[in-house]
Amino acid sequence: MDNILDYDTVTLDEEDNTLEIIDQTQLPYRTQILKLTETKDIWDAIYHLKVRGAPAIGVAAAIGLYIASTQADTDDIEEFLNYVREKKEYLNSARPTAVNLSWALERMEKVCLDNRNLDIPKICSLLKQEALKIKAEDTEMCYRIGENTLGLLDKGYGLLTHCNAGQLATSRYGTATSAMYLGYERGYGFRIYCDETRPLLQGARLTAYELSSAGMDVTLVCDNMVSSLMRQGLINAVLVGCDRVAANGDVANKIGTSVVATVARRYNVPFYVCAPSSTIDLSTASGNDIVIEQRPAEEVTEMWYERRMAPDNIKVYNPAFDVTDHELISAIITEKGVIREPYLKNLKGF
Amino acid sequence: MDNILDYDTVTLDEEDNTLEIIDQTQLPYRTQILKLTETKDIWDAIYHLKVRGAPAIGVAAAIGLYIASTQADTDDIEEFLNYVREKKEYLNSARPTAVNLSWALERMEKVCLDNRNLDIPKICSLLKQEALKIKAEDTEMCYRIGENTLGLLDKGYGLLTHCNAGQLATSRYGTATSAMYLGYERGYGFRIYCDETRPLLQGARLTAYELSSAGMDVTLVCDNMVSSLMRQGLINAVLVGCDRVAANGDVANKIGTSVVATVARRYNVPFYVCAPSSTIDLSTASGNDIVIEQRPAEEVTEMWYERRMAPDNIKVYNPAFDVTDHELISAIITEKGVIREPYLKNLKGF
Repeated sequence: MDNILDYDTVTLDEEDNTLEIIDQTQLPYRTQILKLTETKDIWDAIYHLKVRGAPAIGVAAAIGLYIASTQADTDDIEEFLNYVREKKEYLNSARPTAVNLSWALERMEKVCLDNRNLDIPKICSLLKQEALKIKAEDTEMCYRIGENTLGLLDKGYGLLTHCNAGQLATSRYGTATSAMYLGYERGYGFRIYCDETRPLLQGARLTAYELSSAGMDVTLVCDNMVSSLMRQGLINAVLVGCDRVAANGDVANKIGTSVVATVARRYNVPFYVCAPSSTIDLSTASGNDIVIEQRPAEEVTEMWYERRMAPDNIKVYNPAFDVTDHELISAIITEKGVIREPYLKNLKGF
Repeated sequence: MDNILDYDTVTLDEEDNTLEIIDQTQLPYRTQILKLTETKDIWDAIYHLKVRGAPAIGVAAAIGLYIASTQADTDDIEEFLNYVREKKEYLNSARPTAVNLSWALERMEKVCLDNRNLDIPKICSLLKQEALKIKAEDTEMCYRIGENTLGLLDKGYGLLTHCNAGQLATSRYGTATSAMYLGYERGYGFRIYCDETRPLLQGARLTAYELSSAGMDVTLVCDNMVSSLMRQGLINAVLVGCDRVAANGDVANKIGTSVVATVARRYNVPFYVCAPSSTIDLSTASGNDIVIEQRPAEEVTEMWYERRMAPDNIKVYNPAFDVTDHELISAIITEKGVIREPYLKNLKGF
């Protein structure tokens, strides 16, 4: 197994101006590095989840748009701006609901518009800087989340995580996994437990892969084994990522997160949500206002679409996310610091 | 899909003296009825889980021993008794840890020994009666568990179950599912939710199959979706089976049971354990005294052993069962009645 820390999830190879990504659809079977230069191939990589995780997608698209800009066959600035806008909209269409994707692409286009008085090679150079800055900011943010989380953990802790809020979803370190990487580098000797995370098994396929390839002590469990672990005192803290934090501190995250939080509360295990401050959405009053995406039944009934594991025509309930009530959350940890109850008051200003 | 209620899980076809079972290894893909007469084939069916569930195995073995007795090629009583003992020990070796298997076979042999003064055809006839009696008793016990459970449920309830404590594990009705069958026949209009039950998916493959084939309103969910269901108020009661009840009311059952119980308590959903009184083991003081079987890692990492879904060499924690603390259990329901807290006092005498 390769060491995931030898690779950034998303990289600009500056020598030959290509986007380098680990093809996540091949994990954990093999570590295949893709080198992409054509905008269509980069679109395809995002669309087919070869690169996934909102922050990682944003960085990949920004680098992709920079690479596209260097391929513009014009020295007319209006033609160039139209070309960049076209490529931007094309890349944005790969996953229209991912906020980071459009956010990163808008930021890139703004560099062009703000510098239209410069010559095109100079604008391309600024685009390269901006893409690398977006990536560096994401890495820095994850690092700070890790530092802030690590301050709450002791050496030798057993840590449980759910789904993949890992390096593979960000530029580096991940969010929920960031303190695991930093602790590993600093000899904390954590024992890590990964929920497999049904139905799509991001925990088994991605988190278990990236943490064990980094050399950590990782144990894979089914989602329904968390009570068994905690009853034996094997877990000292739970670290999860999140998709949205409501104003009252309710958190939407991968389905099953609230089950872990409920069991953790029973066994008095601290439950920490690790996420960028940008996921705090004060315009959403509570978890009840978050619409939960329902996913296809086949994700549950046909593992890997090879052999059916449930009766034909069985009804399936398959929400992608659930809501964890704020009273089950010990702290929300962002790059800016640690937020605790009362969330309604303390989330303001973040 | 065939209606499971058209078949008993285990049947003696009296016309041609064969054991009829549904091959559970084929479910839910197809409903294949096996007709077995050779003792070796019956051993094989038990060994390879074509018939499974402790009560169902006991009945199958009893019928199998009766069929074997009719094939004895002797009219010498001592030779006959030796022949029966040999077949008994052979059948018992198919799954040596299942208590019901040896219990049913001992009961059958006792019929021979108690009636050695009779002629062999008459003994065979008594063996047939005994096998059918074991089956009838199991059916009656499940029926009574169902009646006692149904008394705690209202029409239109949403019911959640975990694993397969169903008709396919017993002669008829099942334990946790018994009230579902009785309620269905009486127009209760239950909405049933089945946990898929990782890693071996007995809920998806067997419970979802048997309840939906009977015509019920069944929805399959992943184990980590129970909090999402309960937060929406969709579940009015949880019904599960169990493998052992300790003297203090702690219950060992399929891994994940205690997760469901913990989440149910948070949402004030009654959590009922439905089991024969024979599973109450007063010699076990509490759940801490129950040794939990650890199962192979491949059950988690290689679904259906076709394609690996986790990194090579990843550590796996895969307990077959967990312990649900008695304070999370609203009632333990047996064929004799409903037992509530304080369990230490109220379990005595059952």
